[in-house]
Amino acid sequence: MTIQNRINRLLSYKHLLNRFKSLGMVRVFSDNIADPLGISASLVRKDFGIFGISGSQKGGYTVNDVLAKINEILGSNEIQKVVIVGVGRIGEALMSYGGFQKDGIKIVAGFDIDVKKIKKTGEIPVKPIEELEDYVRDHNITVAIMAVPDIAAQQTLERLKAAKIKGILNFSPVKFKSTEEITINNFNIENELVNLIYFVNKYKKNGKKIINTNH
Amino acid sequence: MTIQNRINRLLSYKHLLNRFKSLGMVRVFSDNIADPLGISASLVRKDFGIFGISGSQKGGYTVNDVLAKINEILGSNEIQKVVIVGVGRIGEALMSYGGFQKDGIKIVAGFDIDVKKIKKTGEIPVKPIEELEDYVRDHNITVAIMAVPDIAAQQTLERLKAAKIKGILNFSPVKFKSTEEITINNFNIENELVNLIYFVNKYKKNGKKIINTNH
Repeated sequence: MTIQNRINRLLSYKHLLNRFKSLGMVRVFSDNIADPLGISASLVRKDFGIFGISGSQKGGYTVNDVLAKINEILGSNEIQKVVIVGVGRIGEALMSYGGFQKDGIKIVAGFDIDVKKIKKTGEIPVKPIEELEDYVRDHNITVAIMAVPDIAAQQTLERLKAAKIKGILNFSPVKFKSTEEITINNFNIENELVNLIYFVNKYKKNGKKIINTNH
Repeated sequence: MTIQNRINRLLSYKHLLNRFKSLGMVRVFSDNIADPLGISASLVRKDFGIFGISGSQKGGYTVNDVLAKINEILGSNEIQKVVIVGVGRIGEALMSYGGFQKDGIKIVAGFDIDVKKIKKTGEIPVKPIEELEDYVRDHNITVAIMAVPDIAAQQTLERLKAAKIKGILNFSPVKFKSTEEITINNFNIENELVNLIYFVNKYKKNGKKIINTNH
């Protein structure tokens, strides 16, 4: 039960509570939250306890209070500005995706080495990579998405470190380790596919299923 | 130490051994593999032991033998055909990505509900979603990437199950659980970002770092 799992559940609680709220619900019980998410009510109460979310005197939780507290914990009560380095296919897809806003995340700029990409993509500007450090400092940005090819990965990491970025979601094929200074979450689509194929093939050969519980 | 981590390391070994091979190396020792990957030689030997990769009589491992064995384990000695359901920005980005081939993965077709998308995207055809079941059966496909919006996720899952797909890499915002019949690996970019922002903010507030070890 890692802290990541807890944070992901907080986000699920938030999305569910927003739907409850839109139905006009004012107060909910841990069972109301647990059932749609397929988890136990005691886990919901434990999560709430750990994050200091307390129930109301009458029993249950006040939807608005829980939402306010979750937004405070997740930092979603202020807009979190994120930059993308590498405006290739993946970078562009993320820049044009509108779904981040409900979680208080805004992609504010893309950066690329290729001058042909330096333009306005929708409403989000694409800037030359040389401007990254100044931009990040001037706009007080701490989180970046890295979507560059393997040959550019190490150099991009150095640039992001120099710009005092504190968190990176890394889509490049090169895996980097988190350090004291910077948290790096790696996502490698090839690895995910190879993993999946391994499990599926194993199933075909053995006829028995190993449930992949890592996700 | 999950099996997923082991599979991901096998893939790293493979990429590294291919580079050794291109340098003309014939035999390697566990240290040669461990050092560039920043892991211990005993872990390399343990991984090899678990997957039945044995050393040569003279000590060390024969590069070609290890590569052949890893390809057999990962199923990369035959091309693994994968379909994409949902040809939006993410789906299209994956279809146009050329890097899967070195791992023996080939995206063979995309499927979408939107007739405007039914065309040739590069070399990979995009077909109407109604043809999914027949296509998957005729081409003996077991793995699919799901890149549909939230409202289409449940219905897409049902279609993939009906088509007897055994493994799904799910990029939709709806999280699904693996079952006996189907392995589902969820990747939710929003969750990853919210997680990262939480860690970065926590660091800003407390001044001390919690290293995120989940990735």
